[in-house]
Amino acid sequence: MRALVFDRKLELRSDCPDPVASPGESIVRVSVAGICGTDLEIARGYMQFRGIPGHEFAGRVIESQSSALRGKRVVGEINAGCGRCTACSAGLPRHCPNRTVLGILGRDGAFAEYLKLPDTNLIPIPDSIPDEIAVLVEPLAAAYEIFEQTHLARNQTILVLGDGRLGALVALVLKGEKYLPLIAGHHQEKLARLADLALETAEESSLREKFDVVIDCTGSEFGFRRAIELVRPRGRIILKSTAAAAAELNLAPVVVNEITVIGSRCGRFQPALDALAAGRIDPRPLVDGTFALDDGIAAFEAAKNPLNFKILLSAT
Amino acid sequence: MRALVFDRKLELRSDCPDPVASPGESIVRVSVAGICGTDLEIARGYMQFRGIPGHEFAGRVIESQSSALRGKRVVGEINAGCGRCTACSAGLPRHCPNRTVLGILGRDGAFAEYLKLPDTNLIPIPDSIPDEIAVLVEPLAAAYEIFEQTHLARNQTILVLGDGRLGALVALVLKGEKYLPLIAGHHQEKLARLADLALETAEESSLREKFDVVIDCTGSEFGFRRAIELVRPRGRIILKSTAAAAAELNLAPVVVNEITVIGSRCGRFQPALDALAAGRIDPRPLVDGTFALDDGIAAFEAAKNPLNFKILLSAT
Repeated sequence: MRALVFDRKLELRSDCPDPVASPGESIVRVSVAGICGTDLEIARGYMQFRGIPGHEFAGRVIESQSSALRGKRVVGEINAGCGRCTACSAGLPRHCPNRTVLGILGRDGAFAEYLKLPDTNLIPIPDSIPDEIAVLVEPLAAAYEIFEQTHLARNQTILVLGDGRLGALVALVLKGEKYLPLIAGHHQEKLARLADLALETAEESSLREKFDVVIDCTGSEFGFRRAIELVRPRGRIILKSTAAAAAELNLAPVVVNEITVIGSRCGRFQPALDALAAGRIDPRPLVDGTFALDDGIAAFEAAKNPLNFKILLSAT
Repeated sequence: MRALVFDRKLELRSDCPDPVASPGESIVRVSVAGICGTDLEIARGYMQFRGIPGHEFAGRVIESQSSALRGKRVVGEINAGCGRCTACSAGLPRHCPNRTVLGILGRDGAFAEYLKLPDTNLIPIPDSIPDEIAVLVEPLAAAYEIFEQTHLARNQTILVLGDGRLGALVALVLKGEKYLPLIAGHHQEKLARLADLALETAEESSLREKFDVVIDCTGSEFGFRRAIELVRPRGRIILKSTAAAAAELNLAPVVVNEITVIGSRCGRFQPALDALAAGRIDPRPLVDGTFALDDGIAAFEAAKNPLNFKILLSAT
């Protein structure tokens, strides 16, 4: 099959072996895949991943032992746990120490014609949600994860730091759930587009006030430092960036100001699917382009352009 | 009056002016003061403090407009807020942006014959608690602060990282409140003394398991990194160290493992006073020596000795 493969560099190959399902796994024909910041980091060496990246997808099950899945349009939770450890027993395969992660850790991903995942990871897509929207369930679920980790009060001030793809999705989710976040970044064009979606926006460097909650979606090693400056004493920083570089960090302000820092990664898909089906969120205005899989390298270049929010790959 | 003064270096002076109370402040004759890790950091330049350090004390009010305080034995909360800002209005003068902090920020401290503090900071000591124990209320309150920030469940595994003075007090408080912490460090002699106090102890480098909660009391820039290794996914790190040095830190594991980091500093005195009065904690075995104020420099040297837990200064 055709696939984008990362092995020291990213390249399109047409001779990749088709995935072979192990017992309990299904084969999915990928219809659409999304490029996210983690993919760009992987293409710079993050996680020492070798293989097919890509973990945001929508597709159709073409081979499965499960009659509930066969032929269905699906999205897929990206962490595949061992099913036996403490984390898996607690319903958190996302934190299984032996997990594989689609396109990130020990498992080929979605920038390909086909992928395989355990049946238990696959979730049918409601008919009302087209593939081009369903593909965004994974990053939207990562935004919904925040609600499962900490309680945000309606009267708290919330700053989303970073006007990139993740920041925009987090801000849209907050707004969809009736919060009033401020999203701040450096890119005038993007801030203007976000303002058109009725989001409150600000030039990051102009911020002087302190916020109850700062959500770092910068994807930059400097984001956390700026978040520390912008959070009030006893406030919360939600850390969404796996900025791969080690930063020179002085944690004394975290102690002195008794800040709580909450690392936040993947979330359950269901809340995001529910919100899309109910029409509480419409992420379509954030899609800046859809490239054919054969143009995958160009798609990565477009995803690196800081003026683009979201780039999709169409495998069909 | 006599006092220890830090101005590029620490020295004993006998010609310091006596403190003069502003309206609403009382003058306290210091009876006992404790040397803590922050004092050692201040003597290395932390906070750019110049003046008389020292923030752990017990003493007697010798001058006050408050009849409730005059002549009383007292301890004192160390943060003096402006009384007008959002933090002060919320009952958190500890986080007032305009605060002074006894012996740490903009206010001379307790390594002296006399000090001044606002009346509202001073708390009478119950008769059952002698000065040599009351002096430890401030660091004990910092330990009790943990309970006001986060809920610790009885069945959670708790690791206190660092066998220094703060780690020992935190472990004693947890045990006094019927938790079963493990305290880990590098000093065999100290671990043996802590084991004699019926605490579970371990050599830090031998730890392989993961803990639900890790409380970093190392006072070292390496403590946080080690805490990240030793906390389970979705676990909590409580950060008690204001390690002044910036560390090369990779925060990706905090995000990937969805760790919550809670900065924790000073606490309310009352819970600690109550626990001392009720006999739930007895910190006396941790006191390794009491030096006269005139021997303050030697006292600091003793406090730097990693085999000592707690060194006190007696001003009388």
